[in-house]
Amino acid sequence: MPNIIGPFEHLVLEDLTEYCVDSRMVYQGEMLAVLCDEVRLPNDGTAKREYVKHPGASAIIPLGLQNEVILERQYRYSTQSHHIEIPAGKRDSGESFLEAAQRELKEETGLTAASWSSLGILDLCIGYSNEKIHYFIAQELEWGETHTDSEENIQLFSLPLREAYQWVLDGRINDAKTVAGLLLYQLWANK
Amino acid sequence: MPNIIGPFEHLVLEDLTEYCVDSRMVYQGEMLAVLCDEVRLPNDGTAKREYVKHPGASAIIPLGLQNEVILERQYRYSTQSHHIEIPAGKRDSGESFLEAAQRELKEETGLTAASWSSLGILDLCIGYSNEKIHYFIAQELEWGETHTDSEENIQLFSLPLREAYQWVLDGRINDAKTVAGLLLYQLWANK
Repeated sequence: MPNIIGPFEHLVLEDLTEYCVDSRMVYQGEMLAVLCDEVRLPNDGTAKREYVKHPGASAIIPLGLQNEVILERQYRYSTQSHHIEIPAGKRDSGESFLEAAQRELKEETGLTAASWSSLGILDLCIGYSNEKIHYFIAQELEWGETHTDSEENIQLFSLPLREAYQWVLDGRINDAKTVAGLLLYQLWANK
Repeated sequence: MPNIIGPFEHLVLEDLTEYCVDSRMVYQGEMLAVLCDEVRLPNDGTAKREYVKHPGASAIIPLGLQNEVILERQYRYSTQSHHIEIPAGKRDSGESFLEAAQRELKEETGLTAASWSSLGILDLCIGYSNEKIHYFIAQELEWGETHTDSEENIQLFSLPLREAYQWVLDGRINDAKTVAGLLLYQLWANK
């Protein structure tokens, strides 16, 4: 039990890998699949790990010529709230993350973009999901028609990027995926 | 279908609430519970919504006198990876978010803190979970003994806060909860 926590350079990186002993699909719904695996711990004990199996997603920061970001307002049933979000969506089978980003941006906002750059990949919910989100910045935008899913009700608007950070601070933007993406963009733009 | 996306001030905020028609617990494991609800959509159609039911969590940015943050290195089975994370954990029944933050910090790092400030609340995974994370900054730290769960293997280290942002940029920190918390801290510190 360490009484003093040292710097990373002094850490002996242990292999803490947990190995699969048994894996079962314990729930397969229309949207969600849940696995329950028995694992062998580094100390040779065993434990159960339950998690959502996810195909991965892409998220997009669509940025206009005046440094305005295109955002979505939509209701999320799981949180019983309206949220302000960047466009994002699950990857379809066989699709690359960039292809998913381009499709989702077009479907949800009607936008196409001539310039795409990767901002990085995050693991959204490491406690109980294997979802990876690949973030992109989309620039040189052109308008078109939206093709949203009939079960998706989305309102679109533009917001000066600097105000988006203010909205995080005052709680109007409270979606972790969007908040994390805004930091990725800031670090990328200032590097 | 809008061809031009206007500013937020021009948006007529629609009520996009989805109302519960029927709710079923479709999976109840040792760690995860999944609900499948039938909902009435704003256009009077119906849809199914599946999501993880979660008690909420607290996450802590423990900050030392030299502006160093205390971080954890641990293996997450769901992503099959080692991750660098801020301390965090689920709220126990009857516990406030602050109490959970204080308990988790003590259990996972051995630290107690004399100064606590709220950085805000985020919804971690709005597509399929109702998990809320309440973020705190903990300062005026004192060392003690750790009391980690026997199934948790955690390595602790300290990192200058400015380097943590560099680690987000280079992908060494890829946990969305931690990335989002680092932006919350930056906005709070600079306001």
